[in-house]
Amino acid sequence: MTTRTTFLGLGAMGSALAAAALDAGRPSVVWNRTPGRAGALGERGATIAKTVDEAITGDGLIILCLLDHQSVHAVIDPVAASLTGRTVINLTTTTPNQARELAAWATEHSITYLDGTIMAVPEMIGRPDAVIFYSGAEAAFEENRELLDLWGQSDYFGTDRGMASLRDMAMLVGMYTMFAGFLHGAAMVGAEGVSAAEFARRQTPFLAAMTGQLAGLAATVDAEDYAGADQQSLEFTEAALASLVTASLEAGVHVDVLRPVHDIVRRQIAAGYGRQGTARIFEELRKSR
Amino acid sequence: MTTRTTFLGLGAMGSALAAAALDAGRPSVVWNRTPGRAGALGERGATIAKTVDEAITGDGLIILCLLDHQSVHAVIDPVAASLTGRTVINLTTTTPNQARELAAWATEHSITYLDGTIMAVPEMIGRPDAVIFYSGAEAAFEENRELLDLWGQSDYFGTDRGMASLRDMAMLVGMYTMFAGFLHGAAMVGAEGVSAAEFARRQTPFLAAMTGQLAGLAATVDAEDYAGADQQSLEFTEAALASLVTASLEAGVHVDVLRPVHDIVRRQIAAGYGRQGTARIFEELRKSR
Ligand SMILES: NC(=O)c1ccc[n+]([C@@H]2O[C@H](COP(=O)([O-])OP(=O)(O)OC[C@H]3O[C@@H](n4cnc5c(N)ncnc54)[C@H](OP(=O)(O)O)[C@@H]3O)[C@@H](O)[C@H]2O)c1
Ligand SMILES: NC(=O)c1ccc[n+]([C@@H]2O[C@H](COP(=O)([O-])OP(=O)(O)OC[C@H]3O[C@@H](n4cnc5c(N)ncnc54)[C@H](OP(=O)(O)O)[C@@H]3O)[C@@H](O)[C@H]2O)c1
Repeated sequence: MTTRTTFLGLGAMGSALAAAALDAGRPSVVWNRTPGRAGALGERGATIAKTVDEAITGDGLIILCLLDHQSVHAVIDPVAASLTGRTVINLTTTTPNQARELAAWATEHSITYLDGTIMAVPEMIGRPDAVIFYSGAEAAFEENRELLDLWGQSDYFGTDRGMASLRDMAMLVGMYTMFAGFLHGAAMVGAEGVSAAEFARRQTPFLAAMTGQLAGLAATVDAEDYAGADQQSLEFTEAALASLVTASLEAGVHVDVLRPVHDIVRRQIAAGYGRQGTARIFEELRKSR
Repeated sequence: MTTRTTFLGLGAMGSALAAAALDAGRPSVVWNRTPGRAGALGERGATIAKTVDEAITGDGLIILCLLDHQSVHAVIDPVAASLTGRTVINLTTTTPNQARELAAWATEHSITYLDGTIMAVPEMIGRPDAVIFYSGAEAAFEENRELLDLWGQSDYFGTDRGMASLRDMAMLVGMYTMFAGFLHGAAMVGAEGVSAAEFARRQTPFLAAMTGQLAGLAATVDAEDYAGADQQSLEFTEAALASLVTASLEAGVHVDVLRPVHDIVRRQIAAGYGRQGTARIFEELRKSR
């Protein structure tokens, strides 16, 4: 019997993962809590299991792609005994500590656990721009590279099970704050009748170009040398942010997202660092105040 | 006598603007409040004026590049009478309403006023990636294109004098929030010993790619159709942001910048829009709450 891969959870993402495996000719068995979501995968050759127990029969790899941490426990707790000696790769989004908790649970049940976090939408699965971060059992990562690489670019971040999630979440913070800042800017020009689409045409290349500044900020942070020349000073940034806040309020735009950045800069200036570089915002975010 | 261009203010930026004009062979007269900053420009052929009065003799164009709105008034108020019938291009950073106030002041004194705002650092002046936004007197923009285009790409945004500034400021909000989000992410992975430089290597292309999402957000905002399919729902985003907040706090990172984004999303969900698109953040930023 060929070893089959089991897919538990056939939402948008779980289905995309299973479809890529099937299209590559891998024998697969699929299960979903609510029946009827596996049809298209069945046509692609999947064995459709009615229960989790049935789905995990054999000794194959088990892929989890469920809603959240809680739903993972709901699915695997009842079958823990049958999973002894097996390998589970969990692609459900969890926080770092939730991933660590699941890994500890797995160790307790002699299950090999690899945590993964997907930096892509389902449509991207199978394309090289889909990136998946992994951490946890290294052997499980290496042994299953052929499958993992079907989905996109696979990056392994060490045995701390929380690392894939931490890396993923750290990347998303910049994305959400950038989106919020963009929508704030769109509201400012929108107050004068400029469409968001026209604003986006300029903002998109501008922000893409400005990502080129991140390496410089990072070098400053790593060197902890905020006094070096050639850095935009906190005082300069404070004046700019004060103008942005004023202009926003005058345009009727709320400064919920912008004000805290201004406040952080002002606190660093109050602490005596006005002439130092703007990357000192980092110190205000990480320090225990 | 050849008409000379007058440069008032020889800080880092004013000097760069004057240097580009001189290098193109334009007769220029320069002035700075604190003497001794014009030396390098003198070597390039500038006439160095000792007073503002001396600097504005003749009928040439006047370029202002001073610290802020207040310093502009400090320089031009005393010589208002001599400026009647002249054209002033102000490249000092001001808020939209400050630009409008200066334009009103100029009209009162029969001065033609063009407002400009520089999207570049001094080193970029003269390169095609330096962008300068203008608004105000259109004839002044057209007549002086030859000079303006020496500095970079010149974009004109109409007769509302506040528009160049508003456009500029709207673009900078996204930049500052992105920088703050990046430093937040760096603090998260930094808590586990990952360098900011290593984080930047991944975050830079990721955020650059994510700017590709802005056009879609903009289309949704313009159409005011937040219920359309294919949008990431506020509920999905809320769950993601809740995880980011939890993971940040567990890593000892302050959520000053992130929490407000989460709060905005939660307010929209509380208002009954959970199934609608995340671009609804826009409504929360512009609406009068
Ligand atoms: N979609 C994306 O763009 C994307 C991107 C990156 C990461 N992810 C992550 O991938 C995971 C799956 O996302 P998705 O887009 O596939 O979500 P989805 O379409 O909403 O599917 C959720 C899946 O979880 C199952 N489920 C929920 N609660 C359950 C429970 N208590 N017991 C058993 N099954 C349960 C659902 O089963 P039912 O059909 O029975 O409800 C469904 O199969 C999530 O952690 C998500 O954060 C998604
Ligand atoms: N540098 C950049 O990266 C950049 C980028 C975009 C826009 N800008 C804008 O360009 C403008 C100039 O910036 P900069 O970088 O050249 O600044 P800077 O190097 O600090 O120079 C400021 C200039 O303003 C003068 N000044 C200040 N207060 C004055 C007063 N009350 N009366 C007369 N002159 C006064 C200073 O004269 P003293 O020498 O006598 O002090 C100096 O010439 C600012 O509005 C800035 O926001 C700069």
